[in-house]
Amino acid sequence: MEEKIPYKIYLEESEMPSSWINLRAFMDKKPAPLLSPTTLKPITQEELSKVFCDELARQELDDTSKYIEIPEEIRNFYKMYRPAPLIRAYCLEKALKTPAKIYYKFEGNNTSGSHKLNSAIAQAYYAKQQGLKGVTTETGAGQWGTALSMACSYFDLECNVFMVKCSYEQKPFRREVMRTYGAFVTPSPSMETEIGKKINEEFPGTSGSLGCAISEAVEVASKNPEYRYVLGSVLNQVLLHQSIIGLETKTALDKYGVTPDIIIGCAGGGSNLGGLIAPFMAEKLQGKKDYRFIAVEPSSCPTLTRGVYAYDYCDTGKVCPLSKMYTLGSGYIPAASHAGGLRYHGMTSTLSELYDQGLMEATSVTQTEVFKVAQQFARVEGILPAPESSHAIKVAVDEALKCKETGEEKTIVFGLTGTGYFDMYAYQKFNDGVMQDYTPSDEELQVAIEKLPKI
Amino acid sequence: MEEKIPYKIYLEESEMPSSWINLRAFMDKKPAPLLSPTTLKPITQEELSKVFCDELARQELDDTSKYIEIPEEIRNFYKMYRPAPLIRAYCLEKALKTPAKIYYKFEGNNTSGSHKLNSAIAQAYYAKQQGLKGVTTETGAGQWGTALSMACSYFDLECNVFMVKCSYEQKPFRREVMRTYGAFVTPSPSMETEIGKKINEEFPGTSGSLGCAISEAVEVASKNPEYRYVLGSVLNQVLLHQSIIGLETKTALDKYGVTPDIIIGCAGGGSNLGGLIAPFMAEKLQGKKDYRFIAVEPSSCPTLTRGVYAYDYCDTGKVCPLSKMYTLGSGYIPAASHAGGLRYHGMTSTLSELYDQGLMEATSVTQTEVFKVAQQFARVEGILPAPESSHAIKVAVDEALKCKETGEEKTIVFGLTGTGYFDMYAYQKFNDGVMQDYTPSDEELQVAIEKLPKI
Repeated sequence: MEEKIPYKIYLEESEMPSSWINLRAFMDKKPAPLLSPTTLKPITQEELSKVFCDELARQELDDTSKYIEIPEEIRNFYKMYRPAPLIRAYCLEKALKTPAKIYYKFEGNNTSGSHKLNSAIAQAYYAKQQGLKGVTTETGAGQWGTALSMACSYFDLECNVFMVKCSYEQKPFRREVMRTYGAFVTPSPSMETEIGKKINEEFPGTSGSLGCAISEAVEVASKNPEYRYVLGSVLNQVLLHQSIIGLETKTALDKYGVTPDIIIGCAGGGSNLGGLIAPFMAEKLQGKKDYRFIAVEPSSCPTLTRGVYAYDYCDTGKVCPLSKMYTLGSGYIPAASHAGGLRYHGMTSTLSELYDQGLMEATSVTQTEVFKVAQQFARVEGILPAPESSHAIKVAVDEALKCKETGEEKTIVFGLTGTGYFDMYAYQKFNDGVMQDYTPSDEELQVAIEKLPKI
Repeated sequence: MEEKIPYKIYLEESEMPSSWINLRAFMDKKPAPLLSPTTLKPITQEELSKVFCDELARQELDDTSKYIEIPEEIRNFYKMYRPAPLIRAYCLEKALKTPAKIYYKFEGNNTSGSHKLNSAIAQAYYAKQQGLKGVTTETGAGQWGTALSMACSYFDLECNVFMVKCSYEQKPFRREVMRTYGAFVTPSPSMETEIGKKINEEFPGTSGSLGCAISEAVEVASKNPEYRYVLGSVLNQVLLHQSIIGLETKTALDKYGVTPDIIIGCAGGGSNLGGLIAPFMAEKLQGKKDYRFIAVEPSSCPTLTRGVYAYDYCDTGKVCPLSKMYTLGSGYIPAASHAGGLRYHGMTSTLSELYDQGLMEATSVTQTEVFKVAQQFARVEGILPAPESSHAIKVAVDEALKCKETGEEKTIVFGLTGTGYFDMYAYQKFNDGVMQDYTPSDEELQVAIEKLPKI
């Protein structure tokens, strides 16, 4: 074992980043602009400000500022649960008998259990600054809703979460964490919005969908000038806030003179992967260094690996702006899987453009192979990983095993975005040997892709 | 805000303790010896070794070695999840508007979610060293069973957990974490032991008890020479291993020149409190410094505040040794409360003796007042605390509010032993306003106390 590198690298408070890094500003060919869902023309800051907070609308459209200062109050909140440790996976390396050096950035050390808090606190801060009364959002698996509840509680903002009805009923503990932080949690579709009433009328007894919950949250925010809508992934502003992950990781590695060869992250909407790779990709874009980047997605929702690069709606209800992105079609409903956070039909525009330019790779994996590695990881590294995060572990392990074949001492870094405490039902399925996989056929994928807007 | 003290103090690996501190060795008047349940005479190492691992039996009886070196393999495991951060509760102080300075040692940053792992890994290590095939134990709330599963998985030891049947059914997620780490989890009473069969016959459909689960675990270990029984609290060896909490806390405080005035911990069997105060109490015993120590127990199980100091059985089944301790009687069944980890009739002998000598204070609190403070703490400090740990928060807040009255800038340190992710049912009761309190009457307490063994 190398004595020089500790098991866990914690930065000092003085070493923590004071600015976020805005990856798009380093790209020669920028991601295509967002389009207004009503005019289908590039959306203006004014239009965006009707739904999002003013400063967040500004950040959403800013593709020239390379660094954006983190306000002091956000930095103070970050200090409560950050820096997140960068962990050297000595025990995993030993178990795999690989010459590879594996590191992971662990974002699960906070009550929300994931990296989502990094953007939630920023969005709540700007809402408070603007003098708003509250924010609305939707949540599926519950990580984002939990993070936002914590952030709103800190700034004494009202937090209205529309929770997909089936999750509301099946994940009561997630719901209770949000309530403990003072959030109002409403099962969606509800009878509190026009769209909710309409859907309940059309489909009595429906268990809801993320698309419907988004539409309800946007409706409430649009109708009340004291509220705005906030979103936990896909948007440029979210990638910006999540760059804290990559910046801390790079500072920690630089401190010990370590240069990674491969950087791996799971990808649903792209928030954690975009944040993790940001400073490294910026170096690659500037020709300073070369890195391999790998996005890992579930085979049941293969956005990058099997989707098309086109303009599409960000939500199923078609009330949000359109984004040019890799997509399976906003009407595509991924098979129920245990990685709820990765069940998104599209991919944030920045990562889509980088992938299209060949600067990033992507691969897909099945959930049973993911849980097998998750269990192995838990047993040797001691952390119970979230199903989403475990997608990255799977590919990190695969790459480490390739090194074992070739004898190469590559340095692999992956993002461990969260913990699996609220996913024990999924682990139970795996432990009982009854977990199943689903990979859609080409014909199935074609249905929603054919319905993409013609732009 | 003082700039000098960071939000979180993390020790470097090189600053981590290399020895445990054995508090009893500093006491002039030692705790009374354990008695054999069969002879009622002081138990010998040989007798103890039939149930416990050899080295652990030795540690159990060693009240002279002031420091005991932590084996390298245990230190390496500690590095995977330790040092635990010592957190300055700036946000709580601000919310309380108190001049007091509040610190807490957070032990929830590991998958078992509590401090229990500190002793589990030590006990598993010594079992492995002895060449055993596995260990047996019982678990109620599930924190100890989870910690032991993780530890056994690391050392490739078989782990047999008898889980109180009602917990097995009501806390399926705890059960699944243990299974994910490879443990065999059996609902108790089972049909796999003589005592289990007997209890099932006598009380068909019983939901079990901790006392019965202990008896089953001890029976399996006693009948098979390749197994030993392990226990997560009450024992001297457990306090020894948990001293890592106090040693890290003291090193972190010393680093910044901070001397606490009051040190507070929740107390069930006494493992975390005993560990937290160890190095501080050693100084007090040597006359080097003075500190106030406060043990906090639930009003539904008021061992120190309303029990008697006498010899009693450590378990309801009376198969374990007898200990001289503050006790409510081994037949006392505390009312169902949401702090399962504090529902123990006795208190570890070391803390009992220190309390009896007037070196430590004790107080009891009701669970609704505990959850009220837990919620406030979660909202301002961002960590969702376990119900057990929240007992310490309650009293820390009370002491901080007293400082507000008097204007004193006292330094308060408390142990935050774990997280509440698996206690959301309890939080739900609180959120819904249907949580109830129970404080036993003197007459009720008298019943079990009258049945104490006459020694």
